[in-house]
Amino acid sequence: MSDLRKLEKILGYSFKNEQILKEALTHKSSKQPYNNERLEFLGDAVMDLIVGEYLFKNFSKTNEGDMSKLRAALVNEKSFATMANALNLGDFIYISQSEQNNGGREKPSILSDAFEAIMGAIYLEAGLFKAQEIALNLLQKCYPKIDYLSLVKDYKTELQELTQARLGVTPVYELVRSFGPDHKKEFEMALFINEREISRGMAGSKKEAQQIAARIAIEKIKG
Amino acid sequence: MSDLRKLEKILGYSFKNEQILKEALTHKSSKQPYNNERLEFLGDAVMDLIVGEYLFKNFSKTNEGDMSKLRAALVNEKSFATMANALNLGDFIYISQSEQNNGGREKPSILSDAFEAIMGAIYLEAGLFKAQEIALNLLQKCYPKIDYLSLVKDYKTELQELTQARLGVTPVYELVRSFGPDHKKEFEMALFINEREISRGMAGSKKEAQQIAARIAIEKIKG
Repeated sequence: MSDLRKLEKILGYSFKNEQILKEALTHKSSKQPYNNERLEFLGDAVMDLIVGEYLFKNFSKTNEGDMSKLRAALVNEKSFATMANALNLGDFIYISQSEQNNGGREKPSILSDAFEAIMGAIYLEAGLFKAQEIALNLLQKCYPKIDYLSLVKDYKTELQELTQARLGVTPVYELVRSFGPDHKKEFEMALFINEREISRGMAGSKKEAQQIAARIAIEKIKG
Repeated sequence: MSDLRKLEKILGYSFKNEQILKEALTHKSSKQPYNNERLEFLGDAVMDLIVGEYLFKNFSKTNEGDMSKLRAALVNEKSFATMANALNLGDFIYISQSEQNNGGREKPSILSDAFEAIMGAIYLEAGLFKAQEIALNLLQKCYPKIDYLSLVKDYKTELQELTQARLGVTPVYELVRSFGPDHKKEFEMALFINEREISRGMAGSKKEAQQIAARIAIEKIKG
């Protein structure tokens, strides 16, 4: 099996036009008349939309600012290099000998660019749905737990640092109520600073509800 | 005809779900339980891909850096506000009375956000092809001449400023050759500074070939 066939097997997609796959794998150091920079440009926008839509549909109660933070945590060189590694892309890219000696097959920037270019190439040849299927499978493989707490900022910690620095106290959280059926329970948490209620948060877990309350409190304190 | 129907007529698209159109038109000042910020988040990525793909397919010889500049010139608050105005969006958005008194219906940021949200809503309901059709029609209406020279930087001017400041001279361009059939002629231009050839550019017009040569010369001079 040729190298390109092996990669197609890992990807779960066979290119009709082999040249476009070659182009997507070609780093500019390899001095071909083509390289993957233009496909990378396209693939970057493809990934932005795929991840953006995924978040839009799966985080239906999350505001735009938090969705942007989540997307920034998933759409970046580091995460694309992680997905490139899940495809073993480093073994398949075309780079110059000197770039290879320089550790090029492991460089996050080179891997990330090749990953974006591959997604651009799939989009061009097979359309958005195919690109979505492949990208979301990879995303879920590399980031099985996509949630706000594991990816982005921890508002509780931020608030605690803020109140200790400014007021010398720690916020206290209390469960106000929970409701709904067991498999879809919602929790409302209240947040107190110096025994005064500052904010409330409601979510599907106590932890998340606390985070929401903490975020609102930070906004109030920072004005 | 209701306001929403009027807008749909201008858009050339009728929403099946009227609520999503209302949400796309709702500025956060209007204090509804919903607003257009989430749809704007999605629509921003939709427009990025639509314009990126358009450039990728129509500027097949343009490198990634120049495509990025072109996209930045087309995908921004000002250009989206221009497209929003082509739809008379200002007449249809929902904003608070105080925002309205404040000139909100003419604010580029509010118009641009509503335009992105509308594109996000069309994408969600009707898919990428429909969103593409509408966005590209609008783009061509608002920017009938999408080319590098009219939208982005003029490398010839930049180079001239650079050489005059540093060397006190002006670059000279000479046609090296032209070739190809009349309807698809290519021109190669050479660029001289102090009678020394610095760079060459090849393109479908002399002007473009000069721009390419100037860009390469700038890169060389700036190192």
